[in-house]
Amino acid sequence: MSEQKQTRLEKQMQFILELDKIKSITRQTFLADETRKENDAEHSWHIAIMAIILKEYFDTDIDLLKVIKMVLMHDIVEIDAGDTFCYDEKANEDKVKREQEAAERIYHILPNDQAQEYKMLWYEFEEGQTKEAIFANILDRLQPILLNFRTSGKLWIENNISQQQVLRRNEKTLSGPKEIADYLMKLLERAVDLGYLRK
Amino acid sequence: MSEQKQTRLEKQMQFILELDKIKSITRQTFLADETRKENDAEHSWHIAIMAIILKEYFDTDIDLLKVIKMVLMHDIVEIDAGDTFCYDEKANEDKVKREQEAAERIYHILPNDQAQEYKMLWYEFEEGQTKEAIFANILDRLQPILLNFRTSGKLWIENNISQQQVLRRNEKTLSGPKEIADYLMKLLERAVDLGYLRK
Repeated sequence: MSEQKQTRLEKQMQFILELDKIKSITRQTFLADETRKENDAEHSWHIAIMAIILKEYFDTDIDLLKVIKMVLMHDIVEIDAGDTFCYDEKANEDKVKREQEAAERIYHILPNDQAQEYKMLWYEFEEGQTKEAIFANILDRLQPILLNFRTSGKLWIENNISQQQVLRRNEKTLSGPKEIADYLMKLLERAVDLGYLRK
Repeated sequence: MSEQKQTRLEKQMQFILELDKIKSITRQTFLADETRKENDAEHSWHIAIMAIILKEYFDTDIDLLKVIKMVLMHDIVEIDAGDTFCYDEKANEDKVKREQEAAERIYHILPNDQAQEYKMLWYEFEEGQTKEAIFANILDRLQPILLNFRTSGKLWIENNISQQQVLRRNEKTLSGPKEIADYLMKLLERAVDLGYLRK
């Protein structure tokens, strides 16, 4: 079927099926039971759950629906660009360019109004400046920490990660809601004590 | 740590980690690339995406945030009760009891107010009477059809499923928004023509 002849609904369904590929983009983080690494669809689902459950710690005027839309779609550029391990400095050099090209292709499977809306939402997430984007970014970085701690630091130990490296990546969380920041600090201190993270 | 001494945030974090198990509950449906079957976390993520993209076909006063909360959590009872194949009549006999017991245990890991709220939302989904529950149920049943069609009817053929069986399970979709109902009918007719579904 040629692109022009597709109906609006057909474009939407094509986008929905294209996104199925996210289930095959493997991340670094292990599942809590350590049987395998999780994928982007599972990760996105998990942080959307976290957004719902932890909303009360964030500003009351946060648009939760917007946060959820953001986190559910924030990794779809990885269909083309792949997952870049956050502590791999070399791979992170051209990450932005690869992901922007991916966004151009994937979002534009949608009808134009939706393509613009959700591509803009992804840029907002990446820029991390609005309340919603800050909330979404905090969750995106907190979720793997919960799993890394639960799996006795398996990933951290394998990659010789230090507490300092995790702290640097989680500055937004530490300057966010006090309860969450305190929880994170305590978790990272225990992680060092238990030998999960290098001091 | 004893249950009483847990802080509110610790209970929420425990719930969030408990839900990680959903990533290991395998469903019947194959991924679009046929490499493996999908799991409940992936399925829930996928229908939440569908809710966002297809909302325009449903009543304008539908509470999309509520629909998304519903679909993201609708399968968590399967952590204890397992996935029941919809066309397995015997396994479906005690499904309700098994799932209600699971809901009692899992939702009550949360602080009581959240436990009540999300358990009630699950019952609302199961009863399928409100606008939001009807929307969520339609998506829950439409998503595997998209994947089953895309995989050339692999699952349908393996289980000798007829068009009639799929139609019966999708009555709500067929009496829902016309565009979606028409799309489904066309898809199922093509599925019969192509030999994916028994006539």
